[in-house]
Amino acid sequence: MKKLFAEFFGTFWLVFGGCGSAIFAAGIPNLGIGFVGVAFAFGLAVLTMAYAVGHISGAHFNPAVSIGLWAGGKFEAKDLLGYIIAQVIGAIAAAGVLYLIVSGKADFESVGGFAANGYGELSPDGYNMTSALIAEFILTAFFMLVILGSTYPKAPKGFAGIAIGLALVLIHLISIPITNTSVNPARSLSQALFADGAYLSQVWLFWVAPVAGAVAGGIIHKAFFGKE
Amino acid sequence: MKKLFAEFFGTFWLVFGGCGSAIFAAGIPNLGIGFVGVAFAFGLAVLTMAYAVGHISGAHFNPAVSIGLWAGGKFEAKDLLGYIIAQVIGAIAAAGVLYLIVSGKADFESVGGFAANGYGELSPDGYNMTSALIAEFILTAFFMLVILGSTYPKAPKGFAGIAIGLALVLIHLISIPITNTSVNPARSLSQALFADGAYLSQVWLFWVAPVAGAVAGGIIHKAFFGKE
Amino acid sequence: MKKLFAEFFGTFWLVFGGCGSAIFAAGIPNLGIGFVGVAFAFGLAVLTMAYAVGHISGAHFNPAVSIGLWAGGKFEAKDLLGYIIAQVIGAIAAAGVLYLIVSGKADFESVGGFAANGYGELSPDGYNMTSALIAEFILTAFFMLVILGSTYPKAPKGFAGIAIGLALVLIHLISIPITNTSVNPARSLSQALFADGAYLSQVWLFWVAPVAGAVAGGIIHKAFFGKE
Amino acid sequence: MKKLFAEFFGTFWLVFGGCGSAIFAAGIPNLGIGFVGVAFAFGLAVLTMAYAVGHISGAHFNPAVSIGLWAGGKFEAKDLLGYIIAQVIGAIAAAGVLYLIVSGKADFESVGGFAANGYGELSPDGYNMTSALIAEFILTAFFMLVILGSTYPKAPKGFAGIAIGLALVLIHLISIPITNTSVNPARSLSQALFADGAYLSQVWLFWVAPVAGAVAGGIIHKAFFGKE
Repeated sequence: MKKLFAEFFGTFWLVFGGCGSAIFAAGIPNLGIGFVGVAFAFGLAVLTMAYAVGHISGAHFNPAVSIGLWAGGKFEAKDLLGYIIAQVIGAIAAAGVLYLIVSGKADFESVGGFAANGYGELSPDGYNMTSALIAEFILTAFFMLVILGSTYPKAPKGFAGIAIGLALVLIHLISIPITNTSVNPARSLSQALFADGAYLSQVWLFWVAPVAGAVAGGIIHKAFFGKE
Repeated sequence: MKKLFAEFFGTFWLVFGGCGSAIFAAGIPNLGIGFVGVAFAFGLAVLTMAYAVGHISGAHFNPAVSIGLWAGGKFEAKDLLGYIIAQVIGAIAAAGVLYLIVSGKADFESVGGFAANGYGELSPDGYNMTSALIAEFILTAFFMLVILGSTYPKAPKGFAGIAIGLALVLIHLISIPITNTSVNPARSLSQALFADGAYLSQVWLFWVAPVAGAVAGGIIHKAFFGKE
Repeated sequence: MKKLFAEFFGTFWLVFGGCGSAIFAAGIPNLGIGFVGVAFAFGLAVLTMAYAVGHISGAHFNPAVSIGLWAGGKFEAKDLLGYIIAQVIGAIAAAGVLYLIVSGKADFESVGGFAANGYGELSPDGYNMTSALIAEFILTAFFMLVILGSTYPKAPKGFAGIAIGLALVLIHLISIPITNTSVNPARSLSQALFADGAYLSQVWLFWVAPVAGAVAGGIIHKAFFGKE
Repeated sequence: MKKLFAEFFGTFWLVFGGCGSAIFAAGIPNLGIGFVGVAFAFGLAVLTMAYAVGHISGAHFNPAVSIGLWAGGKFEAKDLLGYIIAQVIGAIAAAGVLYLIVSGKADFESVGGFAANGYGELSPDGYNMTSALIAEFILTAFFMLVILGSTYPKAPKGFAGIAIGLALVLIHLISIPITNTSVNPARSLSQALFADGAYLSQVWLFWVAPVAGAVAGGIIHKAFFGKE
């Protein structure tokens, strides 16, 4: 149960921090944090919670990561459902609080796209579905390679939280223009539920591609690097 | 006594660095550091002093953190007053030096809002009091979760300064547009004393919300994660 | 063989992340990541993979680094060819996937310069061949000093991945305007193969200068710092 | 002798990286790295060389730091002159190479202010001499507190290079607009020698204030935190 609370708080922090920075601070004229700031916000949310609760739950904060760790032989199937439910609830709770805060803005009318993920007409820079599928698949696969590699017994001790958090910074530096960057189905669902527009009809891609990528990453790691 | 000097110097550095970067460098046309630079300045001030004097005083630099650590069972009530006084004096001293420096600018007329915190009409992007209360409460609560979690005996040794400093970077990436980001009553008071305008009349919120959030964070950590 | 897969995946990640961030995200109006974001992307790609597979292959991801390590007496000549082939294949594979993704953009016409390196008329800010040679030579030489120094037995354990990754951030902060920053022949070749224009005719410089610089760095380290 | 080579290469890297990023990349329209990028360049130069040669020479790369360490009781007076000479030669050599590279730019006419430090009319944002003196004094004093504190026996092992490098990032985030940030007399002299204009007549301040600040920092640390 303690593990599920850790996943709840961690995923809340990821969505509150990453999506919150995008909603509140990315586009402010002249002083705004832009995509660089949002990229660091997502990554630092994971880095900070990895050191805070990583020793409790393993710090997944992401259904695709939990499934990828299972595919890589590092997580038990019987724990999957509980983790995913805690992650999704944490993500939606954070989205709700973000909605509350942003609706207290002087000129608030609607949340627009919130920080939702999309492709085609809903892609930030106009990338089609195929590009979105490829990008989300590959990025989540490599995210798993970093997670599984940096937590491997032979890797330097204690540094995995830095490597994993900064991997998420990198992933966002690459792909915000393509899909607004998911690699995390809980994060995607939480935003699509509140966003205006057709985002909810596209949320399937941000479950399918990250989960498939994470499974591929888990299998690749086990096949190529799993025995030393 | 050595601990109080450490808190004095650390809080001086936090205000001098974080608020100083905002005052001197955020808004310079084209080359300015923007909110991203200010966010890193606050966080790196804490990160650097955490390694410099963390082994002496625990590196709080923040009355809300001291109170939250007490609520979490990691700090003794009898030391609270001394720490808070040292922090407030350090913060005000830094604000005074910032005033001295900025008044030596060729076109100096007034400090304007300095780097003070505010809500409603004094919010950088127009967020109302409720939004400010929610944001400061939640951000300080999670700050405490990172502090208490990353210094927990089972967490990797030596990395807490990185996690805590970068948590403060993240907190600023999210919330500068909402309240100019406090999560630290000493920082807020120090700026409100020098700023033009009604900032001093709003400073109560930046004591109430961060302290309440820190206490909540301390209690949550003790309840959910305190025994392993 | 496991080592070659590690070099393949690592170099893929370096090109996919570093060049990808440049292609997709650098120039977006207002929100784009600019050269700062691209610099962090290249460095974080190496940092993250250094922790993920550094314990397997040593995490070179760069023919110049492999050759420089050989010159510094830390890598065997018989392994050079395999490493370089794996790196070049990984880089080209990443470039191919980047091409696939970018061609799915709504307004796609051509990749233009992709993220290729160049000098003279193909230099991002108009630097001539001599400037390019000096910059690439010196930057790769110092990159080797950081790599050989931070992995030296007397250096702090576990931190080399951070030092090496952040050295690559720094290298890009300096030199993107000069040559678009190579210091890595595999990265340069991979982009020149897909770019429009005369980039392929300039790719020789981005093999010659980085390799010469890396050899110089390896020799300097062995001569000045190799015995303690 | 090995120590002097380490100081030579380290100070070369600091000036080549920090000043080079300012000269080549800060002001490029739209994509330029701005003061944030320059701040990271200076800090990462020190961070990377701290891990590369810190175990050889202690990684000062700065006459003020060497003198401050002597004031703090951590460096012997008899080694001061050699270190300072190696640092100054390294800095000037780097400035010379920067001049070579920048003069190969298509539209090169003069280096202008190079990356020189100044106050009054030569301050980037118009700060007078008093502001410059206060800023350089305080920033170097706190730089010494971080250096002496993070290398103290009770501080976490191995992390000093991160704390010290990121302290220099922070120092630049605060003060580039005031003096273009020195805290390092060797860096200041090296740029003033090549810059157009009256920078050389102001270089005294960037020896006096950083050295005085460093001595103050060393004495404060010894007095308040030196015995545990």
